[in-house]
Amino acid sequence: MTSPLPQLDSNGRLRHLITLDGLEPGLILELLDRAQAYQCLPGRLPPRGDELSGWTVANLFAEPSTRTRASFELAAVRLGADAINLDVMLSSRAKGESIIDTIYTLQAMQVDVFVIRDSQAGIVEFVARHVGDHVSVISGGEAHISHPTQGLLDALTIQQHKGAFRDLTVTFVGDIRHSRVARSAYRALTSLGVAEVRLVAPGEMMPESHEFRGARRFSSFDEGIAGTDVVMMLRIQRERIAEAIPTDIDRYHELYGLTAARLARANKQAIVMHPGPMNRGVEIASDVADGPQSVIRHQVANGVAIRMAVLAHVAEARRRRAS
Amino acid sequence: MTSPLPQLDSNGRLRHLITLDGLEPGLILELLDRAQAYQCLPGRLPPRGDELSGWTVANLFAEPSTRTRASFELAAVRLGADAINLDVMLSSRAKGESIIDTIYTLQAMQVDVFVIRDSQAGIVEFVARHVGDHVSVISGGEAHISHPTQGLLDALTIQQHKGAFRDLTVTFVGDIRHSRVARSAYRALTSLGVAEVRLVAPGEMMPESHEFRGARRFSSFDEGIAGTDVVMMLRIQRERIAEAIPTDIDRYHELYGLTAARLARANKQAIVMHPGPMNRGVEIASDVADGPQSVIRHQVANGVAIRMAVLAHVAEARRRRAS
Amino acid sequence: MTSPLPQLDSNGRLRHLITLDGLEPGLILELLDRAQAYQCLPGRLPPRGDELSGWTVANLFAEPSTRTRASFELAAVRLGADAINLDVMLSSRAKGESIIDTIYTLQAMQVDVFVIRDSQAGIVEFVARHVGDHVSVISGGEAHISHPTQGLLDALTIQQHKGAFRDLTVTFVGDIRHSRVARSAYRALTSLGVAEVRLVAPGEMMPESHEFRGARRFSSFDEGIAGTDVVMMLRIQRERIAEAIPTDIDRYHELYGLTAARLARANKQAIVMHPGPMNRGVEIASDVADGPQSVIRHQVANGVAIRMAVLAHVAEARRRRAS
Repeated sequence: MTSPLPQLDSNGRLRHLITLDGLEPGLILELLDRAQAYQCLPGRLPPRGDELSGWTVANLFAEPSTRTRASFELAAVRLGADAINLDVMLSSRAKGESIIDTIYTLQAMQVDVFVIRDSQAGIVEFVARHVGDHVSVISGGEAHISHPTQGLLDALTIQQHKGAFRDLTVTFVGDIRHSRVARSAYRALTSLGVAEVRLVAPGEMMPESHEFRGARRFSSFDEGIAGTDVVMMLRIQRERIAEAIPTDIDRYHELYGLTAARLARANKQAIVMHPGPMNRGVEIASDVADGPQSVIRHQVANGVAIRMAVLAHVAEARRRRAS
Repeated sequence: MTSPLPQLDSNGRLRHLITLDGLEPGLILELLDRAQAYQCLPGRLPPRGDELSGWTVANLFAEPSTRTRASFELAAVRLGADAINLDVMLSSRAKGESIIDTIYTLQAMQVDVFVIRDSQAGIVEFVARHVGDHVSVISGGEAHISHPTQGLLDALTIQQHKGAFRDLTVTFVGDIRHSRVARSAYRALTSLGVAEVRLVAPGEMMPESHEFRGARRFSSFDEGIAGTDVVMMLRIQRERIAEAIPTDIDRYHELYGLTAARLARANKQAIVMHPGPMNRGVEIASDVADGPQSVIRHQVANGVAIRMAVLAHVAEARRRRAS
Repeated sequence: MTSPLPQLDSNGRLRHLITLDGLEPGLILELLDRAQAYQCLPGRLPPRGDELSGWTVANLFAEPSTRTRASFELAAVRLGADAINLDVMLSSRAKGESIIDTIYTLQAMQVDVFVIRDSQAGIVEFVARHVGDHVSVISGGEAHISHPTQGLLDALTIQQHKGAFRDLTVTFVGDIRHSRVARSAYRALTSLGVAEVRLVAPGEMMPESHEFRGARRFSSFDEGIAGTDVVMMLRIQRERIAEAIPTDIDRYHELYGLTAARLARANKQAIVMHPGPMNRGVEIASDVADGPQSVIRHQVANGVAIRMAVLAHVAEARRRRAS
């Protein structure tokens, strides 16, 4: 068992972004500040920069057309980079050694940043261990483990609506066990010092006890939501539920769906979040998703800005190392 | 039943382009003029502009590699925009509400123009109803309903070869009933005031009587082509015909195929058009497709120019609204 | 039977690059020199240019995400071109005439360079015969026939490590019969005047006798490798072998796999090459692939530079013809 790869360079700046685990609050807040500067006003052209001028960003997504891929592509080109898309599922290759060969082949095209989404845990870090000194690797979502840019944009959205983190109670609801979104948001929020994290899930969707340390666990949504400041709903695989008896979706909604009545038990200023795509009528009622407390569209709007912030930070860190 | 979405802004400029239905001839002619200025001379580099500098154009095509998609992509980048391609068939999503969520997600990436091709009628307008005030939606082909940029490039091609529209007789031939190309060309040409439109088709390919108002209908190609100025052949689904008895293709060609002998019945200066892809030997004989009266390659060459004209017009209209 | 298409223009410059067959050594060396100038130092941003500013390069690859496609795309954009990707397998179309229609359609978008990979022999040249005077066609790999940019990057890699060509013995090993890589490298190296080419393969993988003229043929790897300066291993289709008895892979490795022991029979300064992707443990042992004599990663690194060199040469030739 190897020790985890350090993501930071000798200056304490991000070289890679694979996980939010262990990131200092100062560094996270700096990324949020930078993203804030990349916010786009509706009707205005999006902010641009030249921080990645001359760089090449390669998006390695097994499914080439996801929105996260498009979000990274736009973040890269708006900072002046060339972006290429490759349908590569690294983990689908038969032998570990051939993954290395694939990496070297791609790197030889003078790619500066790899953005990688893979369904197998460990692949993103494996790539980061093998790229050249000047190359950065950013996770675009890794198995159920990590989705760091999503975690950052969730933190940014909370900051925009709540200001300081330290007095907040944040409640995660749904299939937390299989959620990379929940894991990364938890990492960000605990680093930023939220007062309390709560997990609400049926037993089979609750993470194992050694994960989400310090979080309070609830099987009752009504109890878990009481007085909370942030309700973060997670996607439920409608198909998976439907495989059981047909009434299960209704039953799930009854027990773990966020309705207006249930939301009334939270703090009156509580905000409602969801990483998308939503299953309206399953984990969240439509009127809540579109209601005044929902910040779901703000989350999405923060996606490109956070990815621009991470790319610009990584580019600045490389220039500092080189100088 | 909702009233149709106005495509024009308060200045009478296009904000969206979903259909040519109701477009004033002055506006159509202005688009043709603008496209004329984007014509490319063979061997010269294509005209470029900065009308969309800083803009983002997202192409949502269920099949990402169609030529229409490539044509829109090139039109956008030659005007200075960033273009991203997403394989999204909006109508394949299960619930109407989730289409809205998809739209908001994409819009949150600060997309300025959506180019959408969808096999379901109404989706393009549905999107246009829900995007932000500054966002434009352009149809890249909608079911059998509408293909406005194709209609415009057909009009441009006729104008280039015939000059004025008002004395022209235009004959559509083939599967008019299922053709979005024919519908959009008909809209453009009637707005531009052609003297006569004729439809030639077997009964099952003839549109219903409330459509193509004012057009003369023929089951005999020989009668319908007599003295016409423009023959617009439509694609016949070879596969569909072949499902019936094998001799049907020959029979179709005999009755509705454009041969040199049949073309001789048209005006001596008549031009031959086809939106492509052609089935040579089915709806059109090879010698006619490549003959001196064919302007089929001119149609194709007008595609990028028309799309540049539409994008530049939409961008100018937005700037005018904002100022 | 038509005579081969001349690739050179009246100034003796490349208009197309379909094959290395018949290319003068002076022209090949000029391309290698130009590529040398496009070499990238690790950690530095890749060299860029404006030789293709305003140009459009269309990549027609049946599989859109191959690395060769990405390599051509990056070469094009780093020289200032717009690049578009189309999933088009020209040869899959039913009728020869429709290939021409497809070409004209794409050309009408004012594409300046087509990069085409096709599994059917002759398609690339067929396209080159039909494009407009100002359009260039570059092969990205054609059936088992030709892969000229791969041949050039192999020659460049040998030149970088061996200097002059004329005293070299080069040994190809493996499925030479089906290898477009071997054919193109053979063309380049014989034009550049290597002293000796050797082929090592089992009978069913040995090319027919009229091909690879002048090469010495060996069924014994130990004999064929003795004293050679360059060992070029070829990919073996693991699947194909596995279809036979399971022990075949081991047997193949024993007879035709490059091991350290076997490599010791070559010249002490011999270099080891492989076009990738490698099957480690089949045609090449891992320690050899990663060993001090391997230049496999140098081959990959030369890919973008060679493609930039070819594109820049073609653009310069067009400008010269136009002036």
